Amino acid sequence: MKKILVITFFILLGCSGSSKKDSPKFDPASEEKGIREVLKAQEIAWNQGNIDDFMEGYWKSDSLMFVGSAITQGWNATIERYKKGYPDREAMGQLDFTFYDFKFIGNESCLVTGRYHLKRTADDPTGMFTLLLRKIGG
Amino acid sequence: MKKILVITFFILLGCSGSSKKDSPKFDPASEEKGIREVLKAQEIAWNQGNIDDFMEGYWKSDSLMFVGSAITQGWNATIERYKKGYPDREAMGQLDFTFYDFKFIGNESCLVTGRYHLKRTADDPTGMFTLLLRKIGG
Repeated sequence: MKKILVITFFILLGCSGSSKKDSPKFDPASEEKGIREVLKAQEIAWNQGNIDDFMEGYWKSDSLMFVGSAITQGWNATIERYKKGYPDREAMGQLDFTFYDFKFIGNESCLVTGRYHLKRTADDPTGMFTLLLRKIGG
Repeated sequence: MKKILVITFFILLGCSGSSKKDSPKFDPASEEKGIREVLKAQEIAWNQGNIDDFMEGYWKSDSLMFVGSAITQGWNATIERYKKGYPDREAMGQLDFTFYDFKFIGNESCLVTGRYHLKRTADDPTGMFTLLLRKIGG
């Protein structure tokens, strides 16, 4: 079997239970724009070597789930995992996201599919990812 | 960087746009049971060497999306990919799913996270997967 190299993230940005009445005009294009901005900010933080800022976008909850070769559960475990896996600028490399698909599920969640690419001195790891984003309040 | 071996599936079983009024009593436990039955049926079909039956559960749409090392778009391309990658019983092996998490998004979608394991003569490939399931009508 051909081995398939993928990293899957689940990023649960949280969920507001009662925003339906507050946001009657759901506009996918504007939602997608907002999501791209969040992820662009993460890319920038990563490329400044700032994992703390990178993690700012993520839901600070024990429910945050990162799915790789196993499940990493919780925001604290996830940031720890990143800091261990990417201890310095060289390991972090230059991150580049490419987005392929924004699938909205109702008005509050979006499944984003894309590719990450790390440009590093030693190698250029790449792989697909999927992110589940949920809206918190607005 | 440690390489992370994962296969990610997206299985979009379709979506009913107006089932909210028809299903006022949403019961996650019963929904989870239903989902487990669908996936169990897939496991059985696979282990009978029947990729056609395995694919029966999947949304027969061009919108079906399989995310591995790249995106495979559409039901036809996905079944073709399976048949090419698993040409005989030996390649298919014995499939075993383990489920870790059922995350409901509204009343019609569920993100299932689990692990697949193929027991084969030559090797035992395993990896995490995530499935997005949507309810069609009932």
